[in-house]
Amino acid sequence: MRSPDELRALVEEYVAELALTPELHGQADAVRYALVGGKRVRGVICLATAEAAGTAAEQALPAGAALELVHAFSLVHDDLPALDNDAERRGRASAWAKYGEAVAVLAGDALLAEAFRLALSFPFPEVGRELAQATLGMIGGQYLDITGTAPDEATLHKLKTGCLFAASVGCALWAAEVPGREQPPWRAFGDELGLLFQIVDDILDGDGYVLEHGEDGSRRLADQAAERARARLAEVPADTSVLEEIVDSLATRTS
Amino acid sequence: MRSPDELRALVEEYVAELALTPELHGQADAVRYALVGGKRVRGVICLATAEAAGTAAEQALPAGAALELVHAFSLVHDDLPALDNDAERRGRASAWAKYGEAVAVLAGDALLAEAFRLALSFPFPEVGRELAQATLGMIGGQYLDITGTAPDEATLHKLKTGCLFAASVGCALWAAEVPGREQPPWRAFGDELGLLFQIVDDILDGDGYVLEHGEDGSRRLADQAAERARARLAEVPADTSVLEEIVDSLATRTS
Repeated sequence: MRSPDELRALVEEYVAELALTPELHGQADAVRYALVGGKRVRGVICLATAEAAGTAAEQALPAGAALELVHAFSLVHDDLPALDNDAERRGRASAWAKYGEAVAVLAGDALLAEAFRLALSFPFPEVGRELAQATLGMIGGQYLDITGTAPDEATLHKLKTGCLFAASVGCALWAAEVPGREQPPWRAFGDELGLLFQIVDDILDGDGYVLEHGEDGSRRLADQAAERARARLAEVPADTSVLEEIVDSLATRTS
Repeated sequence: MRSPDELRALVEEYVAELALTPELHGQADAVRYALVGGKRVRGVICLATAEAAGTAAEQALPAGAALELVHAFSLVHDDLPALDNDAERRGRASAWAKYGEAVAVLAGDALLAEAFRLALSFPFPEVGRELAQATLGMIGGQYLDITGTAPDEATLHKLKTGCLFAASVGCALWAAEVPGREQPPWRAFGDELGLLFQIVDDILDGDGYVLEHGEDGSRRLADQAAERARARLAEVPADTSVLEEIVDSLATRTS
């Protein structure tokens, strides 16, 4: 089984060399621009899950890349002036700041459609279904966020962040052809990842959970989330050592 | 076999009663709003093709609805201030004029993701693949349009309009489980529909083809496109009478 860094390199190379649909014409430039950078956490979780489930990471690469494209789609649209109005992303101009709003809207659309094209390169529809459900949850979360109508913080993060993390495990299970009846313990693990990621993100940014629970309180919540993720993983009947390593690095990351 | 009007009623009812993903929360309102109205041409072509191919229209309904959702997605995003800046659509406020730009961006995203959810309700991935390719072509066409970089009018319309019309036939063939080797004559028919629709649209709006070819010249081009569509249909080994009726009504429509 390969290390998280080796899996990250696989995702990175696959995304960088991705053949986009030729009919996109010049729109492809903004799509590629939006795909540069990022930690590829979702893709790495997907590949590591596939390997833990006994399948070569390469088999799950289209799914891992699809998750990264959906994540990039969400950032491109969230950054738009009408939404979060972020002119910067990953240390450079955001897509709309670089290409204008119109091309950025279309870039997000193209990223989402390309993601489904990748998810549908499997001979069965389940990876695509998993991705569609997660995307819809994420959009619902973004709606609750921008309209300030979330019933509570937990619901908001579960949708905005948790759905795609859970799908990173779910898509891998389908890509690895793990039967539905064997998936529940894996999925219970996937459900814990989004919250862990979000709390640590807030600790690093000094917002969200930190505003409500303080830095020490948030650190305790992150540790508890990591502990739950490890406990779920212990119930998975497979060698999950690389996934444990990912949990540790999500809990202790400093960027 | 049912008439185009009966098929339209089927599409209309299915779209109106569509159960949206609960995780969309309040975002569902703008999604529903954007789905009201329209002639459901793409959905009707899909259902009529399925029936001509020997399958009950009901079997193809999720595919027909998915095409209508992709069409609605494209209108919602095209209407945005940064793109066509249309405050009106189908005789009432466009989605952004009604719900604001942010919610309209998300509504388009949700329509696209729901379209894939529908297309993936089949036990095989081909309907979804067809939809992804068509959507990417459509996005490429919209890019060429807003940036004024289309090599020629034919390429522009083939992408902007033609892709989704062709997919209306293509999705139906997969939904009806017509083997790939038997699809070429059907697809040759589907390839003619978009152009016919576009030319008549321009005649009704007095723009596009009319500006270049005059009204009489455009009418001749429309008649030729309809003639080609009928000729392709004659090569399809099935009862295509309802599809012929659709060609006639596309050629002679007055709204």
